[in-house]
Amino acid sequence: MEYRRIKDQDKNDAVDDDIESSHGKAVSGSISNVAIVGASSGDRSKWKRKSIVTLALTVLTSSQAILIVWSKRAGKYEYSVTTANFLVEALKCALSLVALMRIWRKDGVTDDNRLSTTYDEVSVFPIPAALYLVKNLLQYYIFAYVDAPGYQILKNLNIISTGILYRIILKRKLSEIQWAAFILLCAGCTTAQLNPSSDHVLQTPLQGWIMAIIMALLSGFAGVYTEAIIKKRPSRNINVQNFWLYVFGMIFNAIAIVIQDFDQVANKGFFHGYSLITVLMILNHALSGIAVSMVMKYADNIVKVYATSVAMLLTAVVSVFLFGFHLSLAFFLGSTVVSVSVYLHSAGKLQTQR
Amino acid sequence: MEYRRIKDQDKNDAVDDDIESSHGKAVSGSISNVAIVGASSGDRSKWKRKSIVTLALTVLTSSQAILIVWSKRAGKYEYSVTTANFLVEALKCALSLVALMRIWRKDGVTDDNRLSTTYDEVSVFPIPAALYLVKNLLQYYIFAYVDAPGYQILKNLNIISTGILYRIILKRKLSEIQWAAFILLCAGCTTAQLNPSSDHVLQTPLQGWIMAIIMALLSGFAGVYTEAIIKKRPSRNINVQNFWLYVFGMIFNAIAIVIQDFDQVANKGFFHGYSLITVLMILNHALSGIAVSMVMKYADNIVKVYATSVAMLLTAVVSVFLFGFHLSLAFFLGSTVVSVSVYLHSAGKLQTQR
Repeated sequence: MEYRRIKDQDKNDAVDDDIESSHGKAVSGSISNVAIVGASSGDRSKWKRKSIVTLALTVLTSSQAILIVWSKRAGKYEYSVTTANFLVEALKCALSLVALMRIWRKDGVTDDNRLSTTYDEVSVFPIPAALYLVKNLLQYYIFAYVDAPGYQILKNLNIISTGILYRIILKRKLSEIQWAAFILLCAGCTTAQLNPSSDHVLQTPLQGWIMAIIMALLSGFAGVYTEAIIKKRPSRNINVQNFWLYVFGMIFNAIAIVIQDFDQVANKGFFHGYSLITVLMILNHALSGIAVSMVMKYADNIVKVYATSVAMLLTAVVSVFLFGFHLSLAFFLGSTVVSVSVYLHSAGKLQTQR
Repeated sequence: MEYRRIKDQDKNDAVDDDIESSHGKAVSGSISNVAIVGASSGDRSKWKRKSIVTLALTVLTSSQAILIVWSKRAGKYEYSVTTANFLVEALKCALSLVALMRIWRKDGVTDDNRLSTTYDEVSVFPIPAALYLVKNLLQYYIFAYVDAPGYQILKNLNIISTGILYRIILKRKLSEIQWAAFILLCAGCTTAQLNPSSDHVLQTPLQGWIMAIIMALLSGFAGVYTEAIIKKRPSRNINVQNFWLYVFGMIFNAIAIVIQDFDQVANKGFFHGYSLITVLMILNHALSGIAVSMVMKYADNIVKVYATSVAMLLTAVVSVFLFGFHLSLAFFLGSTVVSVSVYLHSAGKLQTQR
């Protein structure tokens, strides 16, 4: 539903805005001052679209975590994760096609929304999917060095790696206040996840740390690279870009099925162990994935990291009501730090533009 | 030693600087811009003095906590705390007198360094001592509702109360970034102190919360009021101001001895249970107390709060080497947040002056 609503808005202000959003942050202070005075109505609709995709991502990500808790409570789930991932990619592909067909019917086929592509355009699309595949395979090995709660803690390194790669690869600048906010976001998220056994993570051997850092870099790189691909041609319809991204997602997930779950799928069948909740999770993951692409197109990786971090906190609060979870003091402290971080991120932005 | 060094410096640039430090923060942006350009050498010596007293306070406060740990390890200490507090005030009084006599010998007796005073000047000096007395008495009752580790956590409310009262009573402005930094300081200090039993504090009954908030307000008010007294007459010698503050400290601590420990002192003697470490602690508390006054005169309550918070972290790090303590993940996260807070406090200040 969210996805449809975003789609419809997106037709009104496509080309100009995209170019602005792709280069806007790189321009110097004085030029952007003029832009702020001049382009208020375009800015507002841009801001609105950015807010909607960010909100959609936050809500979908937090409901995603709630579905995972729910499915665990409902009993162990025995479906193969790789087949579910494959179906998520397939569903995203299908949704992109449906959206595209609506657009073709309305606006006709143009250079920006035609599905056919050149080798130059499509050659970079497999890279994010390949990076995620490597990261997911590494995930199996890191558990030799770190336990699951420790891995949850180490995953927060993603925040820092995304910030650094965003700076290096996309060459976007964050103000010093925004960097401080980013460090706080990482510390705050980790604090909110603290539990009595969290200190085990300090005993992680060097190999575990190295793997965690490599995984954080792979995941950060995949995110930042996706943004680079999507923003490279701002006027190109996002659904075409998504279609090609997800086609390669399907291919690489098919490879993962063969590597990891071939025996299980061959013996028990592709859909073995699926239930209503599995279907809901696939649906949710597909919509979240599309929301991520939208955030990459209309906002950036930094916004994505904030949205998913806030979603993590929302999940915990909602779980209090749904599952009777207790919130720890660490959670309150971490949430406070994350909230201040969100404030500082926007306060720091104003400072740069002045 | 620190105290002497500070004293000697302090003679060079007394009157003008004090007036500036007392009103400097209240002036508007444009005027202070001019002041910054104009008064660089005076500013540097002011900054140097401010840094030295802040450093002294940090070092003394952290060694204070280490002495407490040491004394606990050495066995239970059975001296009466109220007599020790009385001796701390007496020692501070004596040190102020010694410093004053040196100044008299060098500069002669002037209006600013004479010990004799007017009712108007001295009438406000008992107030901080009285506030601390009430707070210390309340401390006995709060333990009916909160355990000792919980009280350690709740004491961080002091940070917030000091910030609010500093704003209301001294009418000094903090920038929005500095407020954010202050909230982070409180959250970071609390995070660093987290331990597996910290969550108990969430079960504190309403009476406990109310008492904790009242105690935080009393302690914050005493600190801010002391700053107001000391800065009211900037050219007045700090040792005279200290002398009168500590005289009333002695009187109110004598009252505390009568209220709390009369029987014990009457039966076992004033110095019952004293040891070498008790003497060291009294010495340390006296020097820290003088450092606090210096920080109030040459810096402010905000600097004091930062110095004592950083001291708390230093103590933990030093304890690793001295006592083989283990640092928790929460400690690292809290320290990160406190460090970012210190950075933001100074980054936020620049923003206001621009």
